[in-house]
Amino acid sequence: RILRFLHLYIKDVPRPSFMSKTLKELKIGTYDNVITATKDMPLITALNLFVENRISALPVLDENGHVVDIYAKFDVINLAAEKTYNNLDITVNDALQHRQNDETYEGVATCYEEDRVQDVMEKIVRAEVHRLVVTDGDGKVIGIVSLSDLLDYIILRPMLECV
Amino acid sequence: RILRFLHLYIKDVPRPSFMSKTLKELKIGTYDNVITATKDMPLITALNLFVENRISALPVLDENGHVVDIYAKFDVINLAAEKTYNNLDITVNDALQHRQNDETYEGVATCYEEDRVQDVMEKIVRAEVHRLVVTDGDGKVIGIVSLSDLLDYIILRPMLECV
Ligand SMILES: Nc1ncnc2c1ncn2[C@@H]1O[C@H](COP(=O)(O)O)[C@@H](O)[C@H]1O
Ligand SMILES: Nc1ncnc2c1ncn2[C@@H]1O[C@H](COP(=O)(O)O)[C@@H](O)[C@H]1O
Repeated sequence: RILRFLHLYIKDVPRPSFMSKTLKELKIGTYDNVITATKDMPLITALNLFVENRISALPVLDENGHVVDIYAKFDVINLAAEKTYNNLDITVNDALQHRQNDETYEGVATCYEEDRVQDVMEKIVRAEVHRLVVTDGDGKVIGIVSLSDLLDYIILRPMLECV
Repeated sequence: RILRFLHLYIKDVPRPSFMSKTLKELKIGTYDNVITATKDMPLITALNLFVENRISALPVLDENGHVVDIYAKFDVINLAAEKTYNNLDITVNDALQHRQNDETYEGVATCYEEDRVQDVMEKIVRAEVHRLVVTDGDGKVIGIVSLSDLLDYIILRPMLECV
């Protein structure tokens, strides 16, 4: 099976065309029923969302639906290891406090559906995250693009779509 | 459903007993048919292993089966974004070169089955990785413990095992 990934590496072929295509054109990412959390959601509810939907991260929305953070599996283990809280009804926002007060935190990594695959990959690598939240013009969530989505596209889609 | 995670946060209860139990006692992690790669494996084969087995990382073994690195989905996207190679038969080792030459890379994060859950979590958080390779006394792979394994234990196992 000639993999598109290979295509990246054929000597004198210019960078494959899919790298300069947009997420929208190539339909990369998940755009229907994106599971999200709100700042004041009890942490327990968020944990349930992880397990029930088998997803690895939850975009966190404020009251008017704008993306303000993202809560991922890593953060759950981080919290459990630190155990800085000890009351029952901590919210997702409480759980994220330590990060929000840390200036080095550049905020949730997002992108647009019109961004090119190459730029999306570079952003993921620079931000050292495992997915980007896809937002519309005014910061509302429209989807998620994760490492798996990119990998599946690179490896599984039939070659015929290629240049 | 009273979640064990909650247990962590009941005011005056000492740290829950599972935190000081070992991976072995609580059977946390995957210990049968761990999928691994070798240094000289063609990268294409490794990519296929990701997709076919739905796993997120491949421990990399040397000739005598010792763990020398780990190749994860993030590394594939990192490589695709950079595209520093352009010949067909690059091996997993070639793909990992940039990391092996980077002194700040502390090597693959591993642990023992006898390590306590608390220490495993702290190691994952300190190393900023999403799983640890479980090795035996002389560095051979015996399993993988990932964020999902810890999360599943914390949230799903019936409470009766708890203190
Ligand atoms: N919060 C979410 N809501 C809906 N789908 C998601 C969410 N997070 C990740 N996904 C999708 O779930 C799949 C696995 O993602 P990941 O667990 O990041 O490898 C990918 O197709 C993602 O686009
Ligand atoms: N290389 C591997 N071989 C076998 N199982 C694995 C491997 N990597 C991860 N797993 C298991 O796959 C499940 C999902 O892991 P993860 O994709 O890291 O959330 C967990 O139960 C891991 O223990």
